[in-house]
Amino acid sequence: MFWSSVVHGLSPYVPGEQPKIVDLIKLNTNENPYPPSPRVVAALQDELEADGASLRLYPDPASMAVRQAAAAGWGLSSNEVFVGNGSDEVLAFAFQALLHHPGRGPLLFPDISYSFYPSYCKLYGIGFAEVPLNSRFEIDLDTLPAHAGSFIFPNPNAPTGLALPRATIQAFLRARPDLMVVVDEAYVDFGAESCVPLIREHDNLLVTQSLSKSRALAGLRVGLAFGSEPLIDALIRVKDSFNSYPVDRLAGRAAVEALRDAAWLAENGARIQADRTFLSTALAALGFEVLPSMANFIFVRHPGYAGARLMQALRSRKILVRQFNRPRIEDFLRITVGTPEQCQRLVDALKEILGAPTADTLLR
Amino acid sequence: MFWSSVVHGLSPYVPGEQPKIVDLIKLNTNENPYPPSPRVVAALQDELEADGASLRLYPDPASMAVRQAAAAGWGLSSNEVFVGNGSDEVLAFAFQALLHHPGRGPLLFPDISYSFYPSYCKLYGIGFAEVPLNSRFEIDLDTLPAHAGSFIFPNPNAPTGLALPRATIQAFLRARPDLMVVVDEAYVDFGAESCVPLIREHDNLLVTQSLSKSRALAGLRVGLAFGSEPLIDALIRVKDSFNSYPVDRLAGRAAVEALRDAAWLAENGARIQADRTFLSTALAALGFEVLPSMANFIFVRHPGYAGARLMQALRSRKILVRQFNRPRIEDFLRITVGTPEQCQRLVDALKEILGAPTADTLLR
Repeated sequence: MFWSSVVHGLSPYVPGEQPKIVDLIKLNTNENPYPPSPRVVAALQDELEADGASLRLYPDPASMAVRQAAAAGWGLSSNEVFVGNGSDEVLAFAFQALLHHPGRGPLLFPDISYSFYPSYCKLYGIGFAEVPLNSRFEIDLDTLPAHAGSFIFPNPNAPTGLALPRATIQAFLRARPDLMVVVDEAYVDFGAESCVPLIREHDNLLVTQSLSKSRALAGLRVGLAFGSEPLIDALIRVKDSFNSYPVDRLAGRAAVEALRDAAWLAENGARIQADRTFLSTALAALGFEVLPSMANFIFVRHPGYAGARLMQALRSRKILVRQFNRPRIEDFLRITVGTPEQCQRLVDALKEILGAPTADTLLR
Repeated sequence: MFWSSVVHGLSPYVPGEQPKIVDLIKLNTNENPYPPSPRVVAALQDELEADGASLRLYPDPASMAVRQAAAAGWGLSSNEVFVGNGSDEVLAFAFQALLHHPGRGPLLFPDISYSFYPSYCKLYGIGFAEVPLNSRFEIDLDTLPAHAGSFIFPNPNAPTGLALPRATIQAFLRARPDLMVVVDEAYVDFGAESCVPLIREHDNLLVTQSLSKSRALAGLRVGLAFGSEPLIDALIRVKDSFNSYPVDRLAGRAAVEALRDAAWLAENGARIQADRTFLSTALAALGFEVLPSMANFIFVRHPGYAGARLMQALRSRKILVRQFNRPRIEDFLRITVGTPEQCQRLVDALKEILGAPTADTLLR
């Protein structure tokens, strides 16, 4: 009776579960398997000095130190960077501030993509249309309809892990200067090419990133956006109409150090990419189809086994992976690249499941 | 060109400034002058153990530990509590989820009140009407128009500091069971009566609170809402369509400990109330009109001096207070109750300003 009408029509996003079972191998939410940069932890400990007295003070509402650190990494100005409470919040602001152009056409995104996008659309009343991936599960920019107000896609895409080269996106942006485009780069740091270097050439391009995966800071919720000043201004106007201080003092301190530690990022990324190769090769050897991932997860299916049953069989062995009950991809598993030990335990478990006498029950 | 149309009409909130000048006495944003509970700092240090490895993991999306700790303090169920990234975010969700009832009438709030409310209304397209405070700057519930969809007010009100007794609000809720009501209790812990005990009797009542002021955690951004399960469900549905994880791991850990440390809250609150009495008395002795505050700030004006000029004179002495360029209150200063030393320095500075030969320039 007291709900605003919008609430009835929502389709809230359902994140991967965060169970409290001990001794679980958690490969379902694409978290980094390693602790963050030691510089991050040292800065947080420093912020707690003097009895944590700084916690009584509001953070900088503009998160200027974080914006400067992110800008410096790309040779940009802080006016071309926005910071929010995780890239989910940054995306929410972008949906409301930049992706609602009903006069020009719907918002487009891939039919297989980050499943939060339709939730944002319902929240803000944005009309949308899904663009099918091609038969290889790739985003094909040539098939995008002309009638559109805006377009968002993850690169690499989730949950497929497939990435488009920057040159392909650049050619698309040149051909469609009228279209507001958001490239969601939550997973870009594991081998894909970022579009941040394109923002000065294209005033219709916003690029979002996250410190959750490649900086191992999912627990602290820091997301970024890069774009021309007018685009960043729009995000700031919405943020300042929503919450003056979305990034707390500890998250802000941690983000600055994480962004400055390029050596840690490179080393951690290389390690995860090497383990991704190992895991992909091992699963292919077990008969899995493995999409060529540029993310910190792989997307795989086995020709003889239903995805939901495989997920359950792994779960009974205390290994969590993610499976989506959606057309075209219901037989895929999305598996986070864990430590080498975790990857090995996953491979061993799958060997056991695929070779077990009870495997018949897993057949489609 | 790429802004959604809503962006053009926004009136972003302007928070009190957070300057980086050293040796400043900052009495402009109602922060607690003391560090938070030692239990908070200990819990944060614990969370950073093992090289900060927990930071790589997402927080609990439901913030269940915080909800349980807040519920326990009032003998409620966790289903009657919502947690967000500061009470500003909680309020934003409440505006969108519960305060938009165009079919029944506008949202009402006092004409002198938390100046963020109109910003939320613009963001969500909510029609609103301001209800004038009476001549004593009190909220008079008897003058509320019948044609209304919802009503929000701070108790104690900001920036006046005046509070309504719980019994007055209860009588109003009984008389208006059709009206969705939000009581914004950001400042309730400094002597006013909370309406949380009324939520089971009134399914149209949502009460919001903040850990920023009374728990000295402005830097960590944790806000709460209390209400019947359907109201809390509405907030959760919006939150899960906006950001799965608005409260990060460190803020969540800190909030649990802060909520459990009732002794710290009582002691800190008593100290600030005693200092508020000292400050109010001292300013009254200097000729100020001092509204009887139940918050951690006082709202004062001097019959002979313009508010903006007094604020500037204090600023030149490195003391920040807040003044609002709004009708009826432009000659008031909102002054946060600081430490006894800070209060004394403020009083000394005002003595100097009021008695100085240059005081003429401050006359209205």
